Parts: sequence; structure tokens; C-alpha cells
Amino acid sequence: MRSIIDIADLSIEEINHLIATAHAMIERPEEYQSAAARRILATLFYEPSTRTRLSFESAMYGLGGQVISVPSASNSSASKGESIADTLAVVSNYADIVAIRHPNDGAALVAAQAANIPVINAGDGGHFHPTQTLADLLTIERAFGRLSGLAIVVVGDLLYGRTVHSLLHAMMRYPDNRFIMVSPPELALPHEFVTNLREAGNDVVQTTSLNEALPEADVIYMTRVQRERFTDPTQYERLKGAYELTPKEMTQAPENAIVMHPLPRVGEISPAVDKDPRARYFEQTYNGKMMRSALIYHLLNDSENDTHALERPEMSRSKLEKTLTCSNTRCVTHVERGLATRSINGTSQCAYCDYTLQPC
Amino acid sequence: MRSIIDIADLSIEEINHLIATAHAMIERPEEYQSAAARRILATLFYEPSTRTRLSFESAMYGLGGQVISVPSASNSSASKGESIADTLAVVSNYADIVAIRHPNDGAALVAAQAANIPVINAGDGGHFHPTQTLADLLTIERAFGRLSGLAIVVVGDLLYGRTVHSLLHAMMRYPDNRFIMVSPPELALPHEFVTNLREAGNDVVQTTSLNEALPEADVIYMTRVQRERFTDPTQYERLKGAYELTPKEMTQAPENAIVMHPLPRVGEISPAVDKDPRARYFEQTYNGKMMRSALIYHLLNDSENDTHALERPEMSRSKLEKTLTCSNTRCVTHVERGLATRSINGTSQCAYCDYTLQPC
Amino acid sequence: MRSIIDIADLSIEEINHLIATAHAMIERPEEYQSAAARRILATLFYEPSTRTRLSFESAMYGLGGQVISVPSASNSSASKGESIADTLAVVSNYADIVAIRHPNDGAALVAAQAANIPVINAGDGGHFHPTQTLADLLTIERAFGRLSGLAIVVVGDLLYGRTVHSLLHAMMRYPDNRFIMVSPPELALPHEFVTNLREAGNDVVQTTSLNEALPEADVIYMTRVQRERFTDPTQYERLKGAYELTPKEMTQAPENAIVMHPLPRVGEISPAVDKDPRARYFEQTYNGKMMRSALIYHLLNDSENDTHALERPEMSRSKLEKTLTCSNTRCVTHVERGLATRSINGTSQCAYCDYTLQPC
Repeated sequence: MRSIIDIADLSIEEINHLIATAHAMIERPEEYQSAAARRILATLFYEPSTRTRLSFESAMYGLGGQVISVPSASNSSASKGESIADTLAVVSNYADIVAIRHPNDGAALVAAQAANIPVINAGDGGHFHPTQTLADLLTIERAFGRLSGLAIVVVGDLLYGRTVHSLLHAMMRYPDNRFIMVSPPELALPHEFVTNLREAGNDVVQTTSLNEALPEADVIYMTRVQRERFTDPTQYERLKGAYELTPKEMTQAPENAIVMHPLPRVGEISPAVDKDPRARYFEQTYNGKMMRSALIYHLLNDSENDTHALERPEMSRSKLEKTLTCSNTRCVTHVERGLATRSINGTSQCAYCDYTLQPC
Repeated sequence: MRSIIDIADLSIEEINHLIATAHAMIERPEEYQSAAARRILATLFYEPSTRTRLSFESAMYGLGGQVISVPSASNSSASKGESIADTLAVVSNYADIVAIRHPNDGAALVAAQAANIPVINAGDGGHFHPTQTLADLLTIERAFGRLSGLAIVVVGDLLYGRTVHSLLHAMMRYPDNRFIMVSPPELALPHEFVTNLREAGNDVVQTTSLNEALPEADVIYMTRVQRERFTDPTQYERLKGAYELTPKEMTQAPENAIVMHPLPRVGEISPAVDKDPRARYFEQTYNGKMMRSALIYHLLNDSENDTHALERPEMSRSKLEKTLTCSNTRCVTHVERGLATRSINGTSQCAYCDYTLQPC
Repeated sequence: MRSIIDIADLSIEEINHLIATAHAMIERPEEYQSAAARRILATLFYEPSTRTRLSFESAMYGLGGQVISVPSASNSSASKGESIADTLAVVSNYADIVAIRHPNDGAALVAAQAANIPVINAGDGGHFHPTQTLADLLTIERAFGRLSGLAIVVVGDLLYGRTVHSLLHAMMRYPDNRFIMVSPPELALPHEFVTNLREAGNDVVQTTSLNEALPEADVIYMTRVQRERFTDPTQYERLKGAYELTPKEMTQAPENAIVMHPLPRVGEISPAVDKDPRARYFEQTYNGKMMRSALIYHLLNDSENDTHALERPEMSRSKLEKTLTCSNTRCVTHVERGLATRSINGTSQCAYCDYTLQPC
């Protein structure tokens, strides 16, 4: 049974196919309005995220399906000590497809391994959030008609922001994109990531100046500095307001540029920018719903016709590690009972969250 | 896009039309059972209210529609600092109509201004709750066949009770109603309100004696003294049990009178009254569902055909006030980022919550 | 209006009829897919239980119906002091059938007395949980083709476990079953219960040894020791790991035996047993959904044709007790305002929770 944990689980051809389906759904919704009739989506949100949950649920209703939901962990059996794996084994008997959000990195992979139905990762800790990236890709594609040959300015928290990392991973698979990374030095893109981008043949510029970057931009991707990623609150307070896009900054951006943001915003984009036709962050949420519709549609239909399961390549090559433990305190291996530590073969990376393993 | 924030947003003709639609829905439900097919209602309850939420949701299902829901703020993105305005801009992409409940006065108006879909106020703090009033009006109309020429006895918290204020506002627009206000002196109807009622030509009696008022009553409207409106708990304890309607009191009421209560009750009406045929407080909840059905039905259909938006008259005449702040600590202007203080032109009233503005 | 509070509310004939309906629904789901169209199930979960709630909701969607839900008490009006009875009187206007879960023993009976629609008890404190028992019965019946002539090994908390008590009550109504009770002495089946089983003609064995019991088993019913039932945490810690079923223990069990567990499990069954074809605890959750479907189906249809209400016999013979109070601190009589203490006539048992009444 196929699941989507990471944007890397989808090939370029599959992403393009999902985009084509989303276009068809936007143009001819009536053709899809019963596509998931009598099917049930379970939204299991062990960490609340209103917008993401409502987006999945709206997508499912648009396909004529139904929804069962755990809107937050406080409403769940997790407090009785039920494991993620058991929960998914049970929910597989109640639903046809699952969207799961969980505070622990790697939790969605654990869920996918236990489920008998397709699992979509709706965010696992600071790890992956592939449907946000699908929303981003459709937004860029609808604006420019292509996902290649574009200058992408990414602004804000480039160190922790999973949305940013996932978007870069996706966009570097399309040819001829330039990346202009704007952040305070403390929140710069990890050095390794920059190296990877360059080795893959991408032009990468790093700067602390938003004004310098704007005139070249096709895409201006703003991000929020997330309080929950900091242990030191004073550092958060100092960095959170590093960049603010206002109508004044917008005068520097090209006429055809677009402004994106994964939302929620706190102060990164002034509400005065909302009426600028280049602002696409609310359209982005609409696009997210449509890509989730397309993804649900294909997972439900492919799983009917597809007899060979797609397994994550990392897991198929993963090795049990009895003497190692994951260095990531948020990793699911620290909370799920009976889950063995695994490395991606030949590396010291955790198979669940991709952090470094260390001796117990 | 039309929204309903206050019962005053509806003309008498519109209220009568909603009542007629509710009657049609009660008599011929099968004609409406697909009226909202493929439409989605979002119930955003930042303050939990089981009955009101379930009433809206049941109404939507009765029209063949679907529902997405935020049942409480703890399940929401509000904790990540998302503004009401941004939430509504996003939810406008996921739903066709919104019912919002929020602890801050004026929040529903902020929501309506940001949304691209109709917004129904399901209670904003101590401010407005128009669909409760619609429920009350249908209950009176079904009992007497009219909304005029009636003696309305209102009992309990007349000072803070938004339900009472809203009902009085509505009933004073119909001719020849008498109002008999029963409360302890501390919870009497605000003097200004009494003056307004009298200036509009209504007969108003104020008393502390329930027994005196009952023999004249057509409608006996009981209310709960709400703990959350008091800063001094001893005052609450002293006043909460001021009036209790028991079978003994009911012997004083006319045979054709009806007993109403917006619920939940705490001790205002003895359960022994429930079997009295004059008790209509449970039927009142049924009527609430039917009026919400009628309202959803008209907002969804009118918004399709109606190109001219109805704007709240107060907002169209409102003036930005840079040196004033609202005196109401629960006002939404104190919590929603970037929301400017506005006065209703020519007055010192806050455009969001109607309290007095004062220098910053 | 018929309600199901306890498995004893169903006759053997009715249980067999529900099992037959569940089989029909499993084999020919398309015949039932619109059986509850335009009907609404309310799931009122004043104590969260994800799996049970989602099971009911999935069952209702499988019948083509709709759902309104209170997923936890924190989202409810209970905090405003609304009584269970008033809530049910109101919800009767919003839904066609209710599944209620509540932390207080006897709450479901209070709900059923107040509602005008069928009420299904989805667990009231440590008292009853009849649909779990229905799930258990279908699981046994699907495995053996019968509910009689079986050796039932029940393991774990036999003192507090309501699931166990309910299962035993049901299985003792079928002929020729043997019961082998495995527990630490502190958690043994209450002596009175053992006596009742034997007086009804059943063979009962009590032991502390799981290994001794396994070779004879047709059904191995494992249970969790529930933290919430203990006042002394050290006793819980000592007893919780008393029995663990691993592949090693499974070598002692017959080839045709089945392993059941009401879930969630904590450590009673090793995940390594999951792949053993005798493991049926996940299928058990599927069977639970199907029996809930069958029950909803019959309650909705029977209530349409049935004009004579079924009243619990205990309540019809119950006597008001002004000088007695229930000895069970979790009993609903201690929390629901205006609910009189009642005894089952001629006994000193509480009519709500079956505990002993004592002088006030």
C-alpha cells in the first residue's frame, strides 16, 4: 500500500501528474465530485493544525467522501498509552486513507509501516510536510506555467524550516532554477544543504539583505521564525522580526514576481501587501486543497489497481542498530514502544528522522 | 458577500421571510434535503458551545451539505498566533459559509470583513448572538401566530445577558409589545436601554417580583445568571438563585403562556416544569436548528445571485481613531494584531463592540 | 424509544439477529450503503476514546448517514453546568441516534431516560460497554461458527475489567462454555461473580498460571490492567506486567485457538504475536465496527416501527430512596443535579450503577 511520507517519495513524473490532475479538478470539479464516494479519510492530528486538517477534510468532501477525525491528542487514546502502530492498525479498519500529523519526527513513517491503507504525512515534527510542498509547486506552476528556469528567493528561517528544505529539495529536481537564500547568519541554510544544491548544479546565493535579493526574484518565499524550534526564548525574540515584507519592499520586486508564505504569518508580511496582485499566499492555501484532492484521488485509485507496494528505499536498505540511539530528542524512536533503532545502510543516519545515530 | 453579525443586520421583512422558510422546512423537509449538496459549512468555535455548534451542523446536514469544524481553540492554529482575519481568508478557500464563535466582542465582525464567504455570528463574547434570537422569534411565532401585541416577561440577568438584549431589540421592532422586566436591582436592564424602548413607544415595566409579573405573561423568558460575566464571585453566588420557576409559580401563569430559556439552565427552571405543556425551551432548540437551516439556505443562495454586498451601516460610516482605545477589555481590538480602533462616526462608540472609546 | 445500556438489554435472539445482520453487511455492503441516509448519529464523548468514537462514526458513514460529535468534555457545555439530561433532551432535536461515553457509572442510563431518540452506551465509567461485547461475540462466532461449547481463557484484570464482566455475562447465556480465569490473586474475579457463573451451571477454573491455561483454550482473551482503576500507583506498577503473551507462550496454545484483546494494549501481547494467524485483536476492531453498524441499523429501523418503548426492567421496578446514597463515588447520582437515588426494588443496589446503597 503506497504512502507519501516525504516529497522525495514522488518522482518528477508523479508530481507533474498530480499537478495535471489538480488543474483538471479546478476546471471541471463536477467530474470528480463523486470520485471518493463511500470512502473515508481519517485525519489523525496528534498536534493541532487547523488549516492543514481543514484543507484535507475540505479536499475529501470535494471528492464526495467522508471524514473521521482526531482533531488533537487530548481527544485521543494516546493518553492511554496506545502506540502509533496499533492506532494505525485499528484505524485501517475504519478508514480508506489517513492523513497524520504528529509532534515526533519519523512518526508518519511508523504509521505507514503499520497501516493497511495509504498514509499521507501531514507534518511529523520538524521533519517532513510533503503536501505543503505540493501546494507550493502548484502555486508556482499556476503563476509561471513551469517549475524550471526560475529565481527563488527564500526568506527567514532557513535553518529549521522544514517547508523551506522540502521546497528546495523539490525545486532542485527541476532544471535551471536559482536559489537566493536570505536569512540572519544564525538561521542560514545548513552548510551541507548548500553543498548538495551546488553539487547538483544549482546556482545558490546567500545573503542577509532582503532588498538586494528582491529585484531578481520570480518567487519570494517568506517564512515564519517558529518559536517552538528554539530552546532560548531571547534568541527567538531577537530573530523573529528579522524581515518584514511591506508595500515599500514590494516596490523593489518585479511586476511578475509572486509572494508566497506557508502561513500562519506572524509579522513577516504586512497585511497591506494582501491586496497586491502578486500576493499569492491565500491562493496557496486553495492550491494546497486541490493538490491534496489530487493526491487522495490517486492514492485511493492506485491502491485499488496496484498490487506491488511502494516501499521507501531507505527502509528497504535499513539496518537494525542495537547499540545506537538517535541523537534527535524529538525522534519517534524515543517515544514509540518496541520500535528498534535503524540506520540507513552504510550511513550513521536514523532511518526514521535522518538525524545522526550515536552510541547508546 | 453578506454576513449576519447582529440581529439588526436583518430587516423585519427578512426575519419574516426566514420564519416562512423555516415553516416550509418543517412541513416539507424533503424539498430542502439537497439544498446545500456539495456545499461546506465551517464551524469555527474558538469558545466551546456544544449545543450551538451541533445545532448549526445538524442544520447543514439536513440541507444535504457537509461540515468542517474547529470544535475549540485548543485544537486550533490560534495558539500559533494566527489572526482571525488570516484564518478567515484561508477558510474561505475550504468552505462555502462559516459559523464563528469567539470569546472576544467584535470578533465576528472582523471575521466577516476578512472572509470571501458569508459569516454567521454564533456568539462573540458578551456581544451578539443573532441566531439565538432567530430561534426565540420562531418559538414565539409558532405559539401565537404573531410577533406583535404580546406581553413579554423577561427574568434574570438583564444587565449582561446578550440574549435578552438581542431579543428586546428584535421584539421592539414589532408593534404593540409590552415588556415586563424582572430582576434583582443589581442586574436590571441598563437605564439607557429602558429609555430607548420607551422612546420607541413600548410599554416597559420593571419589577423585582416574578409572582407579580406572571399573571400578565404571554411569554415567560427565563435566563441564567452567567458566572463568566462577574468579576466578584460572591456577587455571583448571591444573585444566581434569585428566581426559580417551579410548578408552584406556573400556577400563576396564564394557560396560553409559554416558558422559554436560551439554555443551559442551572437552577432557574425546575425539571418538574419540563412536562408542563407551556414549557417550550427544548422545542426552542429545535426551532434554533430550523432557523439556522433557513439562514444558511438563504445566505448560500442569495450570495450566488446577489452581486451587491450588504455592509454593516456602522462600518461604512466608521472613522479611524488613532488616539482612542476601546474601554471594553474583551473587545477584539485588544487581541487582533493590526486592527485599528474605529468609532461609529459622530459618536464615541467602538465600531466593533459598541462600548465607549477612551483616550489611549 | 429503545436504548442499549447493558449487554443484558439484548436477548439471545436479538444478539443472534445482530450477528446475522453484521454478516450480511460484511458480505453485501452495497445493500446497506444508504440504510441510514439523511439520518444523524451524535457521538457524545465526555471521556475521550478515539477508537470507540471513530468506530461508531465509520459505522454510521458506512450506512450512508451523517455524524455530529463532541469529541471530549473540554469541547462541551458540561463546563457551563448543563446536566446530562438537558444535553440529551437538546441533542434529541439535532440527531436521530446517540452514542454516549461518560466517566460516571450510570450516566448512559440517565441519558437514555432523557432522550427522545435511541441511546447506545459507548462506555459509562467502569460500568458497562455493551458494543465492545458485541464485537467480542462476533469475533468468536466468526472464528468458530458458534458461541457455545467453547473454553474461554480470560487473562489479566478480572476484578475491575468491565469488558471481562460483560463478556462473561454474555457467554454464560450460551450453553456448555467453560471459563478459565487467569489473574494475580489481587485481581481475581469477584467471588460473587464466580458463584453466579457456577450456579448457572458453568464450569469455572481459577488459576494464576497462564501457561497452565493455554493448552485448553479456544479463546484467549487478554486484558490490560487499567491505571485509572487504581488508587495506589505502586499496586498498579506491580500488577500491570503480570502476564505477557509472546510467541513462546503461543507455542502452548492450540492451533485453532484465537487471541483477543479489547485494546489498547500496553504490554500484555508482544507485537511479535501480531503476525500469528491466531491473533484476532485487530480483526476484533473491524468486527466492532460491523456490530455497531448492525445495532445502529436496527435501532433506527425498529424505533420507526416500534411504538412501545422498551424500559430497563430494573428501572421500572426501581424505588425512590430519600435516605440512601450510592457507595460508588463515580456514580452519576453524585454529579447529576436533581437525580434522585433509586434502588432496584427489594434490594439495596443502586439502580444506576448497581453498587450498594448506604445511609446518607
